[in-house]
Amino acid sequence: MVEKIPADAGALVLSELPAWKKLEGSDAIKRVIKFDNFNQAWGFMTRIALEAERINHHPEWLNIYGKVEVTLTTHECNGLSERDIILARFIDATVHEMTTNKEKEHA
Amino acid sequence: MVEKIPADAGALVLSELPAWKKLEGSDAIKRVIKFDNFNQAWGFMTRIALEAERINHHPEWLNIYGKVEVTLTTHECNGLSERDIILARFIDATVHEMTTNKEKEHA
Amino acid sequence: MVEKIPADAGALVLSELPAWKKLEGSDAIKRVIKFDNFNQAWGFMTRIALEAERINHHPEWLNIYGKVEVTLTTHECNGLSERDIILARFIDATVHEMTTNKEKEHA
Amino acid sequence: MVEKIPADAGALVLSELPAWKKLEGSDAIKRVIKFDNFNQAWGFMTRIALEAERINHHPEWLNIYGKVEVTLTTHECNGLSERDIILARFIDATVHEMTTNKEKEHA
Repeated sequence: MVEKIPADAGALVLSELPAWKKLEGSDAIKRVIKFDNFNQAWGFMTRIALEAERINHHPEWLNIYGKVEVTLTTHECNGLSERDIILARFIDATVHEMTTNKEKEHA
Repeated sequence: MVEKIPADAGALVLSELPAWKKLEGSDAIKRVIKFDNFNQAWGFMTRIALEAERINHHPEWLNIYGKVEVTLTTHECNGLSERDIILARFIDATVHEMTTNKEKEHA
Repeated sequence: MVEKIPADAGALVLSELPAWKKLEGSDAIKRVIKFDNFNQAWGFMTRIALEAERINHHPEWLNIYGKVEVTLTTHECNGLSERDIILARFIDATVHEMTTNKEKEHA
Repeated sequence: MVEKIPADAGALVLSELPAWKKLEGSDAIKRVIKFDNFNQAWGFMTRIALEAERINHHPEWLNIYGKVEVTLTTHECNGLSERDIILARFIDATVHEMTTNKEKEHA
């Protein structure tokens, strides 16, 4: 059984995921990532797809060219669960890995 | 330059793409495909991604587990263009290839 | 710990996987699949990649355009294990799903 | 028609692609890349697959978990062509983008 993270603990967890926003009127969290092009966006999405399948927890996501909007929630518990946090952290780490080099070059 | 398909020709074209619906108040067309699971949905999306990159025309699409919602439009001409039709046909052919066998088994 | 399938049981298992051949001087098994083009081959490989990551058992594979050569073995037990059989069956089912329709059309 | 790069020009080109080696007795070039895991290797391969399909020039490649061996050659001209160089440069840029951050952290 998947346990929902209580509201107060959820706020704490989100404070450690600054790139994510809680959706209004829902426990789901969302992050928007803008890549330079489709090639990069799809490479990113593929890595997330592999991890989602591995941990059996899948995102709701929208893609338009270089833009990816990811929404995470856990239907079994009607809210956020530990699995959402695990996937959010994996997404953050992958974005970081793919973009840090570029940020350095732009700096 | 990308030419917009005129309204009357568009209706004719859509009559040959029965799985697609015109969006209200827009020239965009949309198809929803339901696969059995994420593995199949992602395999499908990957084939469409390759073709989109090859013809340099990308969908707006949403995925939740086995469900894929694809919206096609051409921003350069603010409407439907030949490229949307080409991609829609490729999507239809790929869905057909992936699901016909199963439909036969279910029949 | 991963258990190696004994030689006699292995022969029995392989009799149920007719598309696979045992490699000379090794317990590894190999299947060669020929698709019509790279789009189809890559769509296939992506579905296998998701399953490989999910069950944490990865193939050794070679791709040239529409051709994919998959070799399966389990390094931990220095031979074939149950995991190889699971992945081989998944590969066979996916190939079947992608090609049956076409075979029917060619028939 | 695809033109073969003459032997002397080829040597010059390869001097600018230090990660690639010419195969013995052949004009093909090869690069081996080692990623930390399959997730990263497959994310890389997917980006190369998109580009290969876009420029209609495909690699011969082998993957085992985090290792990818890429061989490039142009069958139409029985040697190296400009397309191999374009794909080799794209591969080098993608590897650089995915690994520079990590190298900095390991330094």
